[in-house]
Amino acid sequence: MKRVEILAVGSELLTPFFQDTNSLFLTERLNSLGLDVSFKMIVGDEEEDLVLGLEDAVRLSDLILVMGGLGPTADDRTREAAARVFGRKLIPCPEVMERIQDRFRRRGLSMPDCNRKQSLILEGAEVLRNDFGTAPGQWIDRNGKIIVLLPGPPHELKPMFDAHVLPRFECFRLGHFFRKTLKLTGITESAVEDLMTGLTPDDPSLGISILAQPGQIEIHLKSLSPSSPEEAEARLKPFENALLSRIGENVFSVDGKSLEEVVGSLLCSLNATLACAESCTGGLISHRLTNVPGISRGYLGGMIAYSNRAKTDWLGVGRDVLIASGSVSAQAAEAMAAGVRRESGADFGLAVTGIAGPGGGTPEKPVGLVYTALAEENGVESSRNLFLGDRDQIKFQSSQKALDMLRRRLLVRRP
Amino acid sequence: MKRVEILAVGSELLTPFFQDTNSLFLTERLNSLGLDVSFKMIVGDEEEDLVLGLEDAVRLSDLILVMGGLGPTADDRTREAAARVFGRKLIPCPEVMERIQDRFRRRGLSMPDCNRKQSLILEGAEVLRNDFGTAPGQWIDRNGKIIVLLPGPPHELKPMFDAHVLPRFECFRLGHFFRKTLKLTGITESAVEDLMTGLTPDDPSLGISILAQPGQIEIHLKSLSPSSPEEAEARLKPFENALLSRIGENVFSVDGKSLEEVVGSLLCSLNATLACAESCTGGLISHRLTNVPGISRGYLGGMIAYSNRAKTDWLGVGRDVLIASGSVSAQAAEAMAAGVRRESGADFGLAVTGIAGPGGGTPEKPVGLVYTALAEENGVESSRNLFLGDRDQIKFQSSQKALDMLRRRLLVRRP
Repeated sequence: MKRVEILAVGSELLTPFFQDTNSLFLTERLNSLGLDVSFKMIVGDEEEDLVLGLEDAVRLSDLILVMGGLGPTADDRTREAAARVFGRKLIPCPEVMERIQDRFRRRGLSMPDCNRKQSLILEGAEVLRNDFGTAPGQWIDRNGKIIVLLPGPPHELKPMFDAHVLPRFECFRLGHFFRKTLKLTGITESAVEDLMTGLTPDDPSLGISILAQPGQIEIHLKSLSPSSPEEAEARLKPFENALLSRIGENVFSVDGKSLEEVVGSLLCSLNATLACAESCTGGLISHRLTNVPGISRGYLGGMIAYSNRAKTDWLGVGRDVLIASGSVSAQAAEAMAAGVRRESGADFGLAVTGIAGPGGGTPEKPVGLVYTALAEENGVESSRNLFLGDRDQIKFQSSQKALDMLRRRLLVRRP
Repeated sequence: MKRVEILAVGSELLTPFFQDTNSLFLTERLNSLGLDVSFKMIVGDEEEDLVLGLEDAVRLSDLILVMGGLGPTADDRTREAAARVFGRKLIPCPEVMERIQDRFRRRGLSMPDCNRKQSLILEGAEVLRNDFGTAPGQWIDRNGKIIVLLPGPPHELKPMFDAHVLPRFECFRLGHFFRKTLKLTGITESAVEDLMTGLTPDDPSLGISILAQPGQIEIHLKSLSPSSPEEAEARLKPFENALLSRIGENVFSVDGKSLEEVVGSLLCSLNATLACAESCTGGLISHRLTNVPGISRGYLGGMIAYSNRAKTDWLGVGRDVLIASGSVSAQAAEAMAAGVRRESGADFGLAVTGIAGPGGGTPEKPVGLVYTALAEENGVESSRNLFLGDRDQIKFQSSQKALDMLRRRLLVRRP
């Protein structure tokens, strides 16, 4: 069996401030080939340390993914360290140079001199094209041990790995993994665990793990088959079905989609339109929805009514409502939802108002008190929520709750 | 100089779902002694892998912190692997056994048999008491190389490290660390590198590393003094000043603050108010600003004018402007900025309109073309930008550019 190692390069990854996250992506991809990762190592930018780390990886492992240290600056030393460890020369590659220069040209910039070294390729290595940055990857075969040099920035590494490394790794495939991730909201982790009591897979080729954060729970299921992904999937099916029948409509996605993607798809498939009125979420719901490509068919816009004046002038929330019930109230949330629906001409108006903290709480209206409301042709409904956590977590949970209200309503409408 | 390594043990840390976070804590503590971490390694629960990882650590490093694999279950093999690597026996320690049994007794439970192995101590090792769990730590001195075995759960590891390891590490103290992070925007990584040409600290006790993402660059500076943290700070100062004088106003923060925090502070200190009109950023600017506690003093609200109707009805962008120049144009951006300023009564109106992709681009107006505009009493200015990257990155860079326009304007206003 091939030992697989991931070697992350970067002094910042040896500080208290940064973590390597690329390896999680790479691990997921390697697992899909039935390959487990045996070692992960992190080394700094110092060439001596890099040399030691690389020597070590070659000693312990057969497939080695090295990421980082391919940038243009003086502390990017992965190329040089690899050349030393493998006893190979670094040779400038004119095609790579041309691609780098072209990248700058397209942005109307001239290439700084320091980028020149990014065209240096190890003797005998294959170039892996970088479509999203200047540093190409390199594929080195050294007596059957494979060493792949990848750029560190995730938006360069991920597409490069999928396009150029994964297909070459096909020959190392050990089996067929099938993974499924159920995403849930509107339920706590302990409630999920209670629902799952007695439901453990007997089959050792099946695995389950639960990952919880406030506002969202993920249940990761996996299954390994020696013969095919279909067989792996079929093996998982009975367990998955038993699980789904217990947790039901709290599951918003079984295909990796985010809640905003699910809501976006539902809106588009129903030809429905949405506008949002946000107070304590401060634009997060709209930001999440507009992360979904093509959402402009369903999402018309939103108002972030942070001040009371914005609530009255923009959304038509009555001054009497704000005086009698306050801006954090079911009445205010409902008036905001109805107001943004009216002002935008959308089918649905979604609103949130609450206290994200850390300041601004009172005994009657504590930090974490959030009202969400949904307006449509037939009227408006609202929900009172008490969320725990810091400002970020309260904003996120509020956005989840609002989007989930809309999701459940759209599901009912679905033909 | 002692090389320091952190070795994390646990098969879950080699899946796509979990990350080692203990090492960030340990690194912070080690840095406080002037010690850098040279290597971090993660190995699974398999005894063979653990043996390889430990052998390796001993070969490369002088101070080795091993965490995890000290539990009572069959897959906790750190003790056994260490005994093999160091050629030492595992000997039951009656005092440790007594403490473990006592822990169960106090909870009214009887000790399961499997916990017995947690009292096994390597021959010659010192026991590090665990006040928050059953697994004691172990301190092994092997010809001057120090290997410390620590439990994996953070609430056991952290107090044990502070109480029993940090004082023993005092003798390895190299000095006093001072750290500073400069955050920049409005400049590329290569341009920073060019500006820094010839500006490398001669003093080997100073360190610098650059971390770039589209839209933001961080320069991490550190300094080590043998005598005091103040001296470390003073030692860094001339280099820091030289650096700052070259990169100047592109630096928005020298104290770890985010761009939205800096803009928030400037707004509050100037008693100025802001409203935003967002199209392609879809609420991201407002979301970022409202992540700052207390921002409601300066941020009044925003409009996410995704549809053309929202641009005309809410922001008063003329239909003639949309027809003549299109919704992605300097004219539209300026009208949006002026519109949201007027509708909100804010001192500043900030606007963004552009094409975030992946669809919607044309040869004249490609994906990544983004106009940002800032309106104030004296008029409105706009900027044409061409950003590269995916939808997320284009949104982020657009929000950075808009917030930075405002920052630079507010700086001029500052008394």
